[in-house]
Amino acid sequence: MKVGIIMGSKSDWPTMLHAATMLDQFNIAYETKVVSAHRTPQLLADYAQSANERGIKVIIAGAGGAAHLPGMCAAFTSLPVLGVPVKSRALKGMDSLLSIVQMPKGVAVGTLAIGDSGAANAGLLAAQILATSDPELMKKIDAFRQEQTEQVLSHPDPSEE
Amino acid sequence: MKVGIIMGSKSDWPTMLHAATMLDQFNIAYETKVVSAHRTPQLLADYAQSANERGIKVIIAGAGGAAHLPGMCAAFTSLPVLGVPVKSRALKGMDSLLSIVQMPKGVAVGTLAIGDSGAANAGLLAAQILATSDPELMKKIDAFRQEQTEQVLSHPDPSEE
Amino acid sequence: MKVGIIMGSKSDWPTMLHAATMLDQFNIAYETKVVSAHRTPQLLADYAQSANERGIKVIIAGAGGAAHLPGMCAAFTSLPVLGVPVKSRALKGMDSLLSIVQMPKGVAVGTLAIGDSGAANAGLLAAQILATSDPELMKKIDAFRQEQTEQVLSHPDPSEE
Amino acid sequence: MKVGIIMGSKSDWPTMLHAATMLDQFNIAYETKVVSAHRTPQLLADYAQSANERGIKVIIAGAGGAAHLPGMCAAFTSLPVLGVPVKSRALKGMDSLLSIVQMPKGVAVGTLAIGDSGAANAGLLAAQILATSDPELMKKIDAFRQEQTEQVLSHPDPSEE
Amino acid sequence: MKVGIIMGSKSDWPTMLHAATMLDQFNIAYETKVVSAHRTPQLLADYAQSANERGIKVIIAGAGGAAHLPGMCAAFTSLPVLGVPVKSRALKGMDSLLSIVQMPKGVAVGTLAIGDSGAANAGLLAAQILATSDPELMKKIDAFRQEQTEQVLSHPDPSEE
Amino acid sequence: MKVGIIMGSKSDWPTMLHAATMLDQFNIAYETKVVSAHRTPQLLADYAQSANERGIKVIIAGAGGAAHLPGMCAAFTSLPVLGVPVKSRALKGMDSLLSIVQMPKGVAVGTLAIGDSGAANAGLLAAQILATSDPELMKKIDAFRQEQTEQVLSHPDPSEE
Amino acid sequence: MKVGIIMGSKSDWPTMLHAATMLDQFNIAYETKVVSAHRTPQLLADYAQSANERGIKVIIAGAGGAAHLPGMCAAFTSLPVLGVPVKSRALKGMDSLLSIVQMPKGVAVGTLAIGDSGAANAGLLAAQILATSDPELMKKIDAFRQEQTEQVLSHPDPSEE
Amino acid sequence: MKVGIIMGSKSDWPTMLHAATMLDQFNIAYETKVVSAHRTPQLLADYAQSANERGIKVIIAGAGGAAHLPGMCAAFTSLPVLGVPVKSRALKGMDSLLSIVQMPKGVAVGTLAIGDSGAANAGLLAAQILATSDPELMKKIDAFRQEQTEQVLSHPDPSEE
Repeated sequence: MKVGIIMGSKSDWPTMLHAATMLDQFNIAYETKVVSAHRTPQLLADYAQSANERGIKVIIAGAGGAAHLPGMCAAFTSLPVLGVPVKSRALKGMDSLLSIVQMPKGVAVGTLAIGDSGAANAGLLAAQILATSDPELMKKIDAFRQEQTEQVLSHPDPSEE
Repeated sequence: MKVGIIMGSKSDWPTMLHAATMLDQFNIAYETKVVSAHRTPQLLADYAQSANERGIKVIIAGAGGAAHLPGMCAAFTSLPVLGVPVKSRALKGMDSLLSIVQMPKGVAVGTLAIGDSGAANAGLLAAQILATSDPELMKKIDAFRQEQTEQVLSHPDPSEE
Repeated sequence: MKVGIIMGSKSDWPTMLHAATMLDQFNIAYETKVVSAHRTPQLLADYAQSANERGIKVIIAGAGGAAHLPGMCAAFTSLPVLGVPVKSRALKGMDSLLSIVQMPKGVAVGTLAIGDSGAANAGLLAAQILATSDPELMKKIDAFRQEQTEQVLSHPDPSEE
Repeated sequence: MKVGIIMGSKSDWPTMLHAATMLDQFNIAYETKVVSAHRTPQLLADYAQSANERGIKVIIAGAGGAAHLPGMCAAFTSLPVLGVPVKSRALKGMDSLLSIVQMPKGVAVGTLAIGDSGAANAGLLAAQILATSDPELMKKIDAFRQEQTEQVLSHPDPSEE
Repeated sequence: MKVGIIMGSKSDWPTMLHAATMLDQFNIAYETKVVSAHRTPQLLADYAQSANERGIKVIIAGAGGAAHLPGMCAAFTSLPVLGVPVKSRALKGMDSLLSIVQMPKGVAVGTLAIGDSGAANAGLLAAQILATSDPELMKKIDAFRQEQTEQVLSHPDPSEE
Repeated sequence: MKVGIIMGSKSDWPTMLHAATMLDQFNIAYETKVVSAHRTPQLLADYAQSANERGIKVIIAGAGGAAHLPGMCAAFTSLPVLGVPVKSRALKGMDSLLSIVQMPKGVAVGTLAIGDSGAANAGLLAAQILATSDPELMKKIDAFRQEQTEQVLSHPDPSEE
Repeated sequence: MKVGIIMGSKSDWPTMLHAATMLDQFNIAYETKVVSAHRTPQLLADYAQSANERGIKVIIAGAGGAAHLPGMCAAFTSLPVLGVPVKSRALKGMDSLLSIVQMPKGVAVGTLAIGDSGAANAGLLAAQILATSDPELMKKIDAFRQEQTEQVLSHPDPSEE
Repeated sequence: MKVGIIMGSKSDWPTMLHAATMLDQFNIAYETKVVSAHRTPQLLADYAQSANERGIKVIIAGAGGAAHLPGMCAAFTSLPVLGVPVKSRALKGMDSLLSIVQMPKGVAVGTLAIGDSGAANAGLLAAQILATSDPELMKKIDAFRQEQTEQVLSHPDPSEE
């Protein structure tokens, strides 16, 4: 397991699975787990504190509303933590975004976009982080990016069915 | 000590002292402490978990930006937790407010206004909570409120010096 | 009746019933009533002023838009008042939230999250307030919190059906 | 006294005096008074309920933050109520604006701009309301508007000193 | 015709009819017209400039997005103008609200809430303005308000079907 | 005169002069004038309707708050209109921006950034528009852009004094 | 081809086709192409740099979220670039709008409204820009505007079916 | 050089130097450079495309307003890119934040807080990323974090001078 994907609630899974799908793309092993900062704070502390010795290299944490999971996870580990603001019911994820990104100096969370795109990009950024010491993986990412470019280039005219 | 006043950083004290001043008004004993959710997460867990047995009845927690202190404090105790959003530099406390108030179902923070007024009212609401089982204190609060009313009534014309 | 649950309109009930459901969980007696700050201001004054002598310990007030009910209720009583911002049609409860939380110094409302979660947490916070002088109730809340924790722990993997 | 100018706090006077200055322009008699929805709710009820019989035709109410004064004033009278959102410290009057303007169906507040311009325009709109039954006043307003137009026309080039 | 109800587009009618319905309640004669600030600016100027001599006492103007109709109408007449921010597709009426309410000193628009409630209240406030010189109408408004109060009082318990 | 620079108030000049300065850079003749949508609506109509026959090719309009000048100018002419949201006191130009950019289908305003940068860019975009039929001017703009690029390239290290 | 219509993704086409439809109205030749700033940055550079010599006079660029296409397009060409903020899922286009309009001094994007209206108006503004050197086109635009005015005038009463 | 720190303008340096200071703390070599997405787009492409082969492992990019630098940098490299929203004049960095964080699926930017704290944390997160393959560096980060914790613990009482 190289990446831990955690989320505040089972209801965040439809968003967070996009992180998993992206990691699958690069054959990166990961684990998925519900870890609630508010309902299971001790589990969160244990999870984050033991992650490094369990071989985890990057943690992806998704949460919505007063989203404390990414920041608290970062408080308990020196591993890079990536935060995904899950779209919330009333404020559409603006609360999630600000709760995750506006961290004080000294404890960092790399924050991605609100919702599915952000989760997918958290998976991609985790891969990019792992690739800083894995040239083979970097090549795979280059190839993924190249393929993405070609998909756009191959269908240039939006007005065609 | 009946009330614990905690804050994420020493720089929050000019705001949070308004909570202390309000409690002084009612002769309610309190303690003040810097407890950072991000920099001292274990201290936060210890503080919140031991508060009840140390006789604390209400916790007032102030923080700014991605303000996780009130919510994480509430995660570790069944005591009532009141949250004060400290005004932040860029977003003027809107981030602090949303990070504190938008808690998920099952872990509650009673949130007050951004800044000094919110801190003062956190002190007042803590007193009101203690007064639910202390009729003498309730009378003091009634008197404070009455005096406040009379201050307005005694200077009715704003255009007079 | 230990808790009064009031709301500005019958249409707020689908939100506010979550406060009632939470109080049921702890066998706390409550009353529910439509009290409109704008359409029945005298009823509001009477309700709030008489609440203490009728044995009410905490008032939960929910309203949407230019939500004046919680703040005006607090203006007429020294009991703790908890405010629930009901999600509004155009601005999704941001107007309700700011109208409730941004109270001036001297009259406090403990504000919860926008919508259903906020209403449920208002019920929980009311219970926590009552528990400051009721050790049996505090134990019930501890148990509720523990059960909540275990629910998360028992279904750790979000990707399993 | 044709117009009542009320405000939630003496600190609102530097804003609200612009309403008074505008009424002076048209020789409309007015009274100014601090009436706090939160600290003097009974005074507010008395003021609003007696305004009509005291000859008041329009009420201008200014307040900041969780600004309940205009809406609660409207709740106690059938006179037209004009609301002025006073600029608040953290949120710059956005909270004041939403707390005043987003009134529910059945109780109306005619809301003006945040701050000094809004206060001046509340005075102007009060005059316009009175002028609906006072053709002489309508002429004065026409003349004021004409003069305002000419001031712009007489200094057409902004780049000249 | 005492009141003119104008709107920027036929698509605003489902909102603005609530103003008409409210005026019907008080038997106040009104006219309804599509007048677009942007597509028919000359019609707007003519409409506003001739309104007073045609006997119109109050103009209600509704528009969405970059809503210029109420403010431009006010620019061409000394009659009181009430603005209704129509809910817009992307920004839900926040753009409409700010475009209408933030008028500069010297030209006033009394602004109501976003959407249907705001339109209904524009009708109510127009009636209140007319009532400042029509005691019979004032009584009707008092009665309407009283009935509204009684509707709330007669169904006090929201949990009953 | 190829470009008209108009603004709602003389107080907008410190912002709008950046448009003039940019046009000076390209030796494009322009005129500057205070034209208030609200205080001089007839002047606005006359200005916009006569601009084309007076040889004006592009109009730059700046205004703040409920900024109606650009949109109303566009309503009276088929010339391209560029809008500059001037920074407002309370809402920092967010109101100006939304009032200018959110135009309905059929009347367009090309909107630039809030404040000085936006005014400068309005001048630049006006030049770019004129250059679509003036190859010499296009070369000047290319040169200006090139020089701008070189300024950055010549001082690559921000940490050097 | 006089106008290039580009967009960040094929999914922007339902919005951007409104620009095309508007240009059709004036018989202005255009091309439509998916050009992603993020996935095909080299294509973007090539497209923008070659546009002028290919005879393109105006570029319309639409994108959503962190919308970099219009601004980056403007970075690579001296042609006028018009930006259309496409409505985004979570933040409803507020992110798109700010990402497009808040350009720094020296590189300009004329920004239109969020969504379909903005796309249509981008087409209209492109036509207006071309018309600055094409009097026949200017007449067509005048006629279009006149027809638009008459459509409003011919159906003046919104309450009629 | 392991880390590249780039920024859109020299005026961003007072913010971005906090990233450099943090990297100094861990003796990580870095380079600093002004690279403007809008004024030097070709430099940006060259910088990002050559970074990997020049040995750069992580890029930190700071920009304000319509901040395109981080996202465009990410478009040209598979290295991890961290974005710092620089506080902007009118909108206080909210525009910068949304322009950086709301990236579409397939091109990721790990976004930090607005302003100085965000820049410092970008340096810290870059270090954490490098530490995923450098156990010595991980220990230094652990020590830095521990020291940070002890600083809080050593000054527990905010009310003491």
